[in-house]
Amino acid sequence: MNHIKKNVLVKEVLHMGEMASGAALTVPVYRFKGQGAGPGVYIQANMHGAEVQGNAVIYQLLELLQGLDLQGDITLVPYANPVGCNHKNGEYTLGRFDPITGVNWNRMYHFNEQQIPDFVRQYQTSSPEVIEQAFRELLLADIADKLEHNIFGLTTGQRIAYQLQKMAHKADLVLDLHTGPISSKHLYCPEYALDSARYFDIPHTIVIPNVFDGAMDEATFCPWWTLQQAFSARGRELDFAKESFTVELGSQEQIDLDVAYQDALGILSYLQHKGVIAGADFTPQAMTRYACYLKDYKAFYAPMGGMVDYLAPFGEPLSAGEPIARILRMDNYGDGDALHYLSLDRPVIPILHFASASVNQGTELYKVFSEYFQL
Amino acid sequence: MNHIKKNVLVKEVLHMGEMASGAALTVPVYRFKGQGAGPGVYIQANMHGAEVQGNAVIYQLLELLQGLDLQGDITLVPYANPVGCNHKNGEYTLGRFDPITGVNWNRMYHFNEQQIPDFVRQYQTSSPEVIEQAFRELLLADIADKLEHNIFGLTTGQRIAYQLQKMAHKADLVLDLHTGPISSKHLYCPEYALDSARYFDIPHTIVIPNVFDGAMDEATFCPWWTLQQAFSARGRELDFAKESFTVELGSQEQIDLDVAYQDALGILSYLQHKGVIAGADFTPQAMTRYACYLKDYKAFYAPMGGMVDYLAPFGEPLSAGEPIARILRMDNYGDGDALHYLSLDRPVIPILHFASASVNQGTELYKVFSEYFQL
Amino acid sequence: MNHIKKNVLVKEVLHMGEMASGAALTVPVYRFKGQGAGPGVYIQANMHGAEVQGNAVIYQLLELLQGLDLQGDITLVPYANPVGCNHKNGEYTLGRFDPITGVNWNRMYHFNEQQIPDFVRQYQTSSPEVIEQAFRELLLADIADKLEHNIFGLTTGQRIAYQLQKMAHKADLVLDLHTGPISSKHLYCPEYALDSARYFDIPHTIVIPNVFDGAMDEATFCPWWTLQQAFSARGRELDFAKESFTVELGSQEQIDLDVAYQDALGILSYLQHKGVIAGADFTPQAMTRYACYLKDYKAFYAPMGGMVDYLAPFGEPLSAGEPIARILRMDNYGDGDALHYLSLDRPVIPILHFASASVNQGTELYKVFSEYFQL
Amino acid sequence: MNHIKKNVLVKEVLHMGEMASGAALTVPVYRFKGQGAGPGVYIQANMHGAEVQGNAVIYQLLELLQGLDLQGDITLVPYANPVGCNHKNGEYTLGRFDPITGVNWNRMYHFNEQQIPDFVRQYQTSSPEVIEQAFRELLLADIADKLEHNIFGLTTGQRIAYQLQKMAHKADLVLDLHTGPISSKHLYCPEYALDSARYFDIPHTIVIPNVFDGAMDEATFCPWWTLQQAFSARGRELDFAKESFTVELGSQEQIDLDVAYQDALGILSYLQHKGVIAGADFTPQAMTRYACYLKDYKAFYAPMGGMVDYLAPFGEPLSAGEPIARILRMDNYGDGDALHYLSLDRPVIPILHFASASVNQGTELYKVFSEYFQL
Repeated sequence: MNHIKKNVLVKEVLHMGEMASGAALTVPVYRFKGQGAGPGVYIQANMHGAEVQGNAVIYQLLELLQGLDLQGDITLVPYANPVGCNHKNGEYTLGRFDPITGVNWNRMYHFNEQQIPDFVRQYQTSSPEVIEQAFRELLLADIADKLEHNIFGLTTGQRIAYQLQKMAHKADLVLDLHTGPISSKHLYCPEYALDSARYFDIPHTIVIPNVFDGAMDEATFCPWWTLQQAFSARGRELDFAKESFTVELGSQEQIDLDVAYQDALGILSYLQHKGVIAGADFTPQAMTRYACYLKDYKAFYAPMGGMVDYLAPFGEPLSAGEPIARILRMDNYGDGDALHYLSLDRPVIPILHFASASVNQGTELYKVFSEYFQL
Repeated sequence: MNHIKKNVLVKEVLHMGEMASGAALTVPVYRFKGQGAGPGVYIQANMHGAEVQGNAVIYQLLELLQGLDLQGDITLVPYANPVGCNHKNGEYTLGRFDPITGVNWNRMYHFNEQQIPDFVRQYQTSSPEVIEQAFRELLLADIADKLEHNIFGLTTGQRIAYQLQKMAHKADLVLDLHTGPISSKHLYCPEYALDSARYFDIPHTIVIPNVFDGAMDEATFCPWWTLQQAFSARGRELDFAKESFTVELGSQEQIDLDVAYQDALGILSYLQHKGVIAGADFTPQAMTRYACYLKDYKAFYAPMGGMVDYLAPFGEPLSAGEPIARILRMDNYGDGDALHYLSLDRPVIPILHFASASVNQGTELYKVFSEYFQL
Repeated sequence: MNHIKKNVLVKEVLHMGEMASGAALTVPVYRFKGQGAGPGVYIQANMHGAEVQGNAVIYQLLELLQGLDLQGDITLVPYANPVGCNHKNGEYTLGRFDPITGVNWNRMYHFNEQQIPDFVRQYQTSSPEVIEQAFRELLLADIADKLEHNIFGLTTGQRIAYQLQKMAHKADLVLDLHTGPISSKHLYCPEYALDSARYFDIPHTIVIPNVFDGAMDEATFCPWWTLQQAFSARGRELDFAKESFTVELGSQEQIDLDVAYQDALGILSYLQHKGVIAGADFTPQAMTRYACYLKDYKAFYAPMGGMVDYLAPFGEPLSAGEPIARILRMDNYGDGDALHYLSLDRPVIPILHFASASVNQGTELYKVFSEYFQL
Repeated sequence: MNHIKKNVLVKEVLHMGEMASGAALTVPVYRFKGQGAGPGVYIQANMHGAEVQGNAVIYQLLELLQGLDLQGDITLVPYANPVGCNHKNGEYTLGRFDPITGVNWNRMYHFNEQQIPDFVRQYQTSSPEVIEQAFRELLLADIADKLEHNIFGLTTGQRIAYQLQKMAHKADLVLDLHTGPISSKHLYCPEYALDSARYFDIPHTIVIPNVFDGAMDEATFCPWWTLQQAFSARGRELDFAKESFTVELGSQEQIDLDVAYQDALGILSYLQHKGVIAGADFTPQAMTRYACYLKDYKAFYAPMGGMVDYLAPFGEPLSAGEPIARILRMDNYGDGDALHYLSLDRPVIPILHFASASVNQGTELYKVFSEYFQL
């Protein structure tokens, strides 16, 4: 680690809302100012409460970035969700949704597609630079408008999401650090940016289309993709070089600072590739990289209730008919089948599985690549 | 109560899934066979775990229906959601969503709009009776197809919802009995059936459009409405007289059998109006009935965290500027404002409020009719 | 309300611990300095997360106390439990226990009875004033010792409880403001202080013995009661005039500032009686006051699972055999008993009932006075 | 595995209570009849909802026991707690306590010490056989009395616990299969039975005193230990050879049938040692076995909130001052210490740690043997 600190780290504490007792919901924000020649970067972690490893990766990135030649500005936000972060149910951290409403914390970002036709008409003949700046301002104004007090207000999760999104819209490259439940490392990557997936040290990539479903990555790349398509429909090809990824760092409920250091190197490899870092030699690890379209990234739901012995290892192709798990049903011992082997009728790559052995009929057991290809 | 039992009640126990221990999830189903001259009816209750009053209403309906002249078949399903029904967190019943995934139990029904164009082409010139029967069979086949075992399976909530929907599709009139958190009685009514809202003893009606968002009422009326519109677009006006309502019976976490008797009378008034019951004289109560379009049924989110003294009574117009609630913030006492009065800038009718005094910034405080009219 | 502020209110913010994100757990503390002629008072509220009405009572007390002649010091602590206060599970606030461990937040206070024999030997012949001061210092030193960092540490709840107890030990009169689930107003009162129960505007009093079970009231009166008994066993009768009450203000999950004003008047009536307030005329309301020994304050557990229509009103004697509740069991309709009436075999006064209609077999349905008497 | 089934397995389904919907809480019970020459055995698993591996061990025991020479009767009960087993909060199973009351499911068993003096007086001169039989009957009658309907009833957890205890009291040897959160294998063993600990394949033993705190093991050995001590106090030494163990099989939320097979062999080694199994050669594995008195089995509470990188491996002595964990505090990065190393001031053996990286100040971080010795 280079301990010469070349870059000044600026820290800010953002107010994201308040709890019933009046306790402030705050989030620390760290910023490096780059030399202006590279794209801006926004990295956040821990939007889902149990997905904590990204905080350790941001720790290692902060340590490493202080000694590097930064061409672009970088903003890093650990503990992005101050409600989820501290919300316990039993020993575990409630992971994925607002405990009051059930809404997934990562489905509350904003994108108003209907603004684009007017915008394209207005800027039809403008220069790419003017278009880029004007569109970014439009996105920021739209979010600011949502956040401003209006008579009916907005939800707890929207207030958090919109404030994060405001920062993310100012960057060109966005990394949202998540984890799976019990999981291999994998990456959600927009289809047009698939080439960049090779620069992360992550062996599995889910290729996602231009469909907005409320997540941070979509909320930051869908507007630009849609804009480019709208111009393209009018015969003008533009490329604003915006990229957003959801980076799934492995399993939830775990912090490992040594693994986080490796994860940080992989991210630096990508940032160097994009010109954010100069004069360094971060290179992606050699590995077999598999990819799969989102429509082929399948959830396999438990066909029965029971207690699961998860058998299939992550990341390796599993042949059709090979057991992926076996389910114990002690209530059937003696007068039924106490042990059930499950398999799929086609080859898959298991990517993650449920966090607990106990599943109801219909619990999401595994997520798998069903039609995969090598990158 | 008429204690002469004219009608035979048939009871069935439906298997809806199983838990980790293998425990079966079952639901009791009660059926009356009508004399065939009236429409079929499906009534369910308690899809949301905490919303239990509908079970008591079904109890009173079962008591009353046994002595009436039934023209149509009636199916009644209390405890419709055997997971939610028994799911405690602290003293309360987890109300609205699957505790594992956060998905609202009443957003998992199915409607595949894309089948309709083909169907309309095929049955363009058929008689209404043939169309009705064929379309009903299409809906049932579609649900059966979803329920059948496929390699990737379906979620716990879908398995429950689809089994309920299969029963509901066989009926012409569907009543899904819910409650609000702390709430007045109100009714979700499709726009075309607004006239029927007058026959319930419910003073507030939300008028809903032909948009499918996963709820039971929508899942049963949207297909027929969409079908009628598709025929209408081809110049043929059809009316299959299907109606579905979400009936909000008041507040959750409460059973009151006496109130349930009154609620049952209101439902019988509607059923008599539709010809399900003959030779009886159930008449709707005289009352001022307000209605509001769904787009004007507004959630008012807490503009601050704090502890709420809910002030505005339900069901009565509240003038612009009148306090709807006051929020206590003891942390501000002495060096800030400990008491905040909240009001809206337009007249509204408060319909329900949050179930707890403790709210975070962004918690849904009230739901109100913002642009209302009398029925 | 007297708006002339005679007394200076001093506010302090206490640090009680920190969450996983580092967020500080803080509690506001309000203090009035009295003129020295009366006993010191400590009042806290909201140790159980859902029991919020005490915060509103403290609000009204702060408003009222500013205009009164205070003879003793008064410390008031709303939001006493900064974890419980903000902990949501679904719409409700997790009421009674640490969500990680299940330990009741009001069972973590400290009393080390074993220090007393030595103390009594040491101060056998001291003056009451010397004994009182030395014993208070012993209690404070004991708590400070527990709070000090030791190698194995202490639990989240102990850290909160001990810091509150440190403040309470400095006072002579302690009021811990709670609520029941759905509940009448009632008071936990140490047996020796039963006379004081007449000065609150609370119709039901539970008389408690000198047994320490971890609660705030016990933690502050048991030491002194035990000390007095130890002296008494040696033939010396002492009375340090310490009193502690758990004041149950009604139902949880509710804030009502108007009711809180009435509750505050009842507390002022007690404080005036004890000489904390001079020159005022707060008098207890005339009412029938019932009392019952703790051993006769019975929990009635649901003899079956089902959905409960709670019938018995609070606070009035219910004859043996009179229905206290009826339980709906829709699964039994048609082939069993769908409605079960419950009663007890002796007269009781129902004091509170469970917060939800849905109960498992064995859920605490009601709490009742079984052998009661008038005060 | 010996597939010749020498023994008949009898299965029974026990009704343990019912939920709000009326759904029955049932538990499967498996029984082998022995040849009468050896002690009776009772084995249960999964009293804590998340601690599922014992079910897999019972599966392997059932497979193995069918082919062995059984001298004593054996009763095996998987899924012992039908509420906890199926109770989800987010993805995880609520582990340790009744979600309504917070009471630990394994603290609700019963022992009434006060019956013993009378019993001893009555049977002072009886033969050991008569004493044993009469005392067992006393224990069974006491539990039956508790379970019988009485006007005020009993809690959900008591109803389950007492029914299990009724079966356990009929056996001589009791094994209660649990797991830790993230944990090594360890054993709770009554002090007098320490010699038996060598026959399990478990490297860590906690030696427990004759103190009843509500757990199954205590509820079954404390009565006999207390009885023997009472006779001993009267000069009569008796040994009824009752042994009860809580067997902690590793980590919760996991099923591994292969590991379960190994765990089953260790249990058979113990059962053979006690004469339950004849003509077999199950021998304990050679391993270093550490033990520690319960008073020296220390919980180490997090001295600060944060996200924990657990460093110390289980089962090996850790020197004083060696880091046991490091805590990440990203909120302190840049203007404080973001990384804190924790250590203890004495040598310990870490046995288990908390299930999540996210801890509040005061969360139980590790449990460790502080004063340990080799068996």
